[in-house]
Amino acid sequence: MTNRINQLQAYMDGSGIDAMLVTSPKHVYYLTGFASDPHERFLGLLLPRGDEPFLLVPALDYEAARAASSVAAIHTHADTDDAYAVLSKLMPAGIRRLGVEKDHLTVNRFEALRAAAGEAAEFADAGLPLREMRAVKTPEEAERMRGAVRLVEEVLRQGLALVKPGVTEIELVAELEYRMKKLGAQGPSFDTLVLAGAKSALPHGAPDRTAVREGEFLLFDLGVFADGYASDITRTFAVGGITDEMKRIYGAVLDGNLRAIEAIRPGATFGSLDRAARETIAAAGYGPLFNHRLGHGLGMDIHEYPSIHGNNEEQLREGMTFTVEPGVYVPGVGGVRIEDDVLVTSDGAEVLTTFPKQLTVIG
Amino acid sequence: MTNRINQLQAYMDGSGIDAMLVTSPKHVYYLTGFASDPHERFLGLLLPRGDEPFLLVPALDYEAARAASSVAAIHTHADTDDAYAVLSKLMPAGIRRLGVEKDHLTVNRFEALRAAAGEAAEFADAGLPLREMRAVKTPEEAERMRGAVRLVEEVLRQGLALVKPGVTEIELVAELEYRMKKLGAQGPSFDTLVLAGAKSALPHGAPDRTAVREGEFLLFDLGVFADGYASDITRTFAVGGITDEMKRIYGAVLDGNLRAIEAIRPGATFGSLDRAARETIAAAGYGPLFNHRLGHGLGMDIHEYPSIHGNNEEQLREGMTFTVEPGVYVPGVGGVRIEDDVLVTSDGAEVLTTFPKQLTVIG
Repeated sequence: MTNRINQLQAYMDGSGIDAMLVTSPKHVYYLTGFASDPHERFLGLLLPRGDEPFLLVPALDYEAARAASSVAAIHTHADTDDAYAVLSKLMPAGIRRLGVEKDHLTVNRFEALRAAAGEAAEFADAGLPLREMRAVKTPEEAERMRGAVRLVEEVLRQGLALVKPGVTEIELVAELEYRMKKLGAQGPSFDTLVLAGAKSALPHGAPDRTAVREGEFLLFDLGVFADGYASDITRTFAVGGITDEMKRIYGAVLDGNLRAIEAIRPGATFGSLDRAARETIAAAGYGPLFNHRLGHGLGMDIHEYPSIHGNNEEQLREGMTFTVEPGVYVPGVGGVRIEDDVLVTSDGAEVLTTFPKQLTVIG
Repeated sequence: MTNRINQLQAYMDGSGIDAMLVTSPKHVYYLTGFASDPHERFLGLLLPRGDEPFLLVPALDYEAARAASSVAAIHTHADTDDAYAVLSKLMPAGIRRLGVEKDHLTVNRFEALRAAAGEAAEFADAGLPLREMRAVKTPEEAERMRGAVRLVEEVLRQGLALVKPGVTEIELVAELEYRMKKLGAQGPSFDTLVLAGAKSALPHGAPDRTAVREGEFLLFDLGVFADGYASDITRTFAVGGITDEMKRIYGAVLDGNLRAIEAIRPGATFGSLDRAARETIAAAGYGPLFNHRLGHGLGMDIHEYPSIHGNNEEQLREGMTFTVEPGVYVPGVGGVRIEDDVLVTSDGAEVLTTFPKQLTVIG
């Protein structure tokens, strides 16, 4: 934690920022070890350049903050206080350039903050150094992500045993999420998707009472938070026998997934991974039906920086973690998506997800 | 849906707003019937004053939007597009004053939007009329909320049957959330809290492997989303025999809850409800240990406008729904919170939550 705050201090030195105000609960946790969900209440960590940081927390979270935070100075505001007025009094003098989290702060909060920030006339984006720091995981963070992957793969394994024709999507979702909690996850890292038949062609479709049927695809997309880190896996199965056309779709997506993973190494561009998958899928004739990006950064958030798409010419660095999840969606027939979580190593990739990817018949 | 859009059109007429851009998924759902979770992708509903609205959705959501939206004009952007550039081309000319959701839009999105919005030089808060509209529920919305309450009360009933000394907080959370899904909820409306013993004194504490023990309080705070609407209930139980002091704490909180509910009627102020509970609890000697507001608005969000605290002198209106949840938290001993969901009627309150409130011994 102290090391991370030191990194931000160095960033402030280098970019002429007088202080940073961190307001997203995730980043307060990342920097202090204090995890909370303040809902609409104000939570903030102020890091003045070259000075001691302090936390401003809702009064009802004081004990929890004291127990968990590596930052010792903790101030509180009550529900009847104007939290920005409290903050205003606590702000040291001389802060002209203030870093705020522009990807997290709402316009209303920003306007209140600007009114409270006294001398501050310029607002830098504190989210930029934070997302850079977070994109490259420490070995300890990578280990937590392996743990989150192991957990969700055990959930998927147990869930698959319950698949039979007639069971509904939402019944399977309930069983999967129950097992997440039982196995020790904090919870799902996003709304669990189980999509049967033609519904599997809706990448963000919602599970309902649609029943599993023979001869169709069954798509699972699920993840957990464990120890503060997310996993995210998609596998698509055949329920009983499927058509040759469906097998071809599956094969194209699997090839795309494998080609993209082969392209991973430090220095490669994110765009090159996306293109590797997309060209493979296009060669099989399904190019226009792969209608989303290849993947997204993964860590404390289920979707975080970087975004892996064809126009992203930034380079991969060792320690980065993201998803590789090509898909092909045929309206009225069904869709296939195969999603892995990967960690960039010194010379390639460690694929964190280990669940088999060959077409598997279940039910 | 059409009626709601008409209400916004009337608001724009009255306040000189040329168009509104609605970007929160909840409000897009509220206004069009199209529910989605676009994650970080752009989703927007543009309502030009006196003209036809249109949706701009991620390409992969096009089919789902078409199937659900009452707004017929649907445009898409791909992951490789700059969604704001796409929006910029779609915006009708002559929009000088644009309403945006200042409580939802982040600073970064607002800056991108401002750059894309061409002539727009002034930005009103489209969140204000929306929160006013949402605060007063239609009979159909109230009925959905009754359904969400019925569902969570059945979950609590089933969960209580599993309480015995030795069972842990997280085991109970897993069982409760499993039942939510099995009974047809979309999911929990917030992270389910089960807090045993001294941990019940942490209003936002996190369930862990702490075991239920005789002679202690056991606090349940849970809710579900069902049909798009949230419920939220807290009940605190005695596990086996508890001390007279603990019974006095319970009695004080229950009296506070009942006094606040008695004060509910159209025209009363929110502050008067908070004071009714607070004065009752203070008279019992626990004033300083009731360290949060009385409650919060409830509806499509688990915490929504209005906030029910002592300084809110706004008046209650028929059709409003909110929580009444006084609590007393004694460090090292335990806490009691009793939370109901209420609907303001023409002459008082309908208490939507029906779970018994008298001190109950379980386990």
